[in-house]
Amino acid sequence: MAGNFALSGSGFHWPARVYYENTDAGGVVYHAEYLKFMERARTEWLRALGFGQTRLLEERGLLFAVANMEIDFLTSARLDDLLNVTVILEQTKRVSLTLAQTITRNDAAGNAIPLIRAKVRIAMLSRDFKPVRIPADLLNRLQPPMDEQP
Amino acid sequence: MAGNFALSGSGFHWPARVYYENTDAGGVVYHAEYLKFMERARTEWLRALGFGQTRLLEERGLLFAVANMEIDFLTSARLDDLLNVTVILEQTKRVSLTLAQTITRNDAAGNAIPLIRAKVRIAMLSRDFKPVRIPADLLNRLQPPMDEQP
Amino acid sequence: MAGNFALSGSGFHWPARVYYENTDAGGVVYHAEYLKFMERARTEWLRALGFGQTRLLEERGLLFAVANMEIDFLTSARLDDLLNVTVILEQTKRVSLTLAQTITRNDAAGNAIPLIRAKVRIAMLSRDFKPVRIPADLLNRLQPPMDEQP
Amino acid sequence: MAGNFALSGSGFHWPARVYYENTDAGGVVYHAEYLKFMERARTEWLRALGFGQTRLLEERGLLFAVANMEIDFLTSARLDDLLNVTVILEQTKRVSLTLAQTITRNDAAGNAIPLIRAKVRIAMLSRDFKPVRIPADLLNRLQPPMDEQP
Repeated sequence: MAGNFALSGSGFHWPARVYYENTDAGGVVYHAEYLKFMERARTEWLRALGFGQTRLLEERGLLFAVANMEIDFLTSARLDDLLNVTVILEQTKRVSLTLAQTITRNDAAGNAIPLIRAKVRIAMLSRDFKPVRIPADLLNRLQPPMDEQP
Repeated sequence: MAGNFALSGSGFHWPARVYYENTDAGGVVYHAEYLKFMERARTEWLRALGFGQTRLLEERGLLFAVANMEIDFLTSARLDDLLNVTVILEQTKRVSLTLAQTITRNDAAGNAIPLIRAKVRIAMLSRDFKPVRIPADLLNRLQPPMDEQP
Repeated sequence: MAGNFALSGSGFHWPARVYYENTDAGGVVYHAEYLKFMERARTEWLRALGFGQTRLLEERGLLFAVANMEIDFLTSARLDDLLNVTVILEQTKRVSLTLAQTITRNDAAGNAIPLIRAKVRIAMLSRDFKPVRIPADLLNRLQPPMDEQP
Repeated sequence: MAGNFALSGSGFHWPARVYYENTDAGGVVYHAEYLKFMERARTEWLRALGFGQTRLLEERGLLFAVANMEIDFLTSARLDDLLNVTVILEQTKRVSLTLAQTITRNDAAGNAIPLIRAKVRIAMLSRDFKPVRIPADLLNRLQPPMDEQP
């Protein structure tokens, strides 16, 4: 069950600051909050590719929904931490994408401490939550012509 | 600005348990979480009156939205606390209701310790967020014939 | 990656109502909210075993933290749904427990529709977040004498 | 009850992006989420003044907690909106500060549409949640010598 997948390449990066809203009485970030940080990074990755989610939904009636997640909670983040959330595209299928995501925090020496390592499969859905093909223009943005992905 | 309103009558009661999800690194319940507890109690109060919010929206295209709140945060709730959330109808207008809400916790001797005291005005909206009259059958359920409210 | 684990036995059950706080603009429950529902059920399961988390932390300096999750998001829950959250102990190790958890909703005919299927490993930690052995009296409550678990 | 206070001066500004995590099944931002946006802005305002909350708590055993709020919910924010959250110091007392906060969104013409208008009183507390005097060096940063505040 342990997530022993490796991350290759640098992928897309997005920062997230830890506020009181993200913490719990254990003194650290509440575990479900990391899913929000990862979803913000996926949203900004899609926006950077030119596929904002509001437009996807309003203009094409399409939305991405999380179908499956595997998450290793390695180390806890704390109040005021500045986190770095990554998105790396691992696999493209007709109706879903598999992403590797990590959350890290820099220590005093500038080394990235891994906090979260996750594999996230997101499925393309119609407005009534039926699986549908990912549009070709979106796939093309994800897979450049010289794509060497397996 | 201090909420010096008094509560009269016993009103509608709804319990809420404090879980880790509701707490923050200060060791107590995060302030915005009390608004969720109060909204759960309003939802159950409407359901008890026969006006579930899903049916209100799907069958009549109506929803209640919070228009204004005044909240006094008196004492903090902690992990595992069992809270008691109340709803008392204070005022009925054509397009809005004003409610007094409290959140209390019983101490070891069984006395109710006040944690939150709030005044909440909720407005009736159409699906496109325009103010609309509260339906007569809903108003009738709120105001029994012998109603002595001002 | 697909969660192909089976659930055996009936385990511990805990209800959860879906309120507006749990939903998102897609019209269904926001994916990270299911983790809160599962954590509530784990909390109540431990409480039913006599190990409330506040006492565990205050009296023994111990807490459980999620170390790893695998989650299949099968069908979406909606506003006002009444969910059933289960906890089944799958494996006991010195410093962690592996639980199978599901979230279901009954359809009109009373059949349980599976929404979430998850495997959750929770680790016993000291107050400073170091892994520690699960106390013997807690393990004994989890494993009755005739227990045939590996 | 209506919050008829005016905002003077430009105050401190902090941006907030609306993600799925902030929205609800009504299609707009869930009301309690605005409190998180306002708390982020207060946190960054204090950080900009040199009083990060982690250091305040760890080095001096002090924290700010919300004691009272008055909030007008004027217009709803939607998914992907970029919000502007402001903080203006209105009043300084020995153990509390009163802040005026707003949340706005720019329309297509660049005009700021007011969404939220709030008055927030935050109290200085010790680690065991007793009211204590605001430290002189923090007050001095809030009130420059030539302060013309009422």
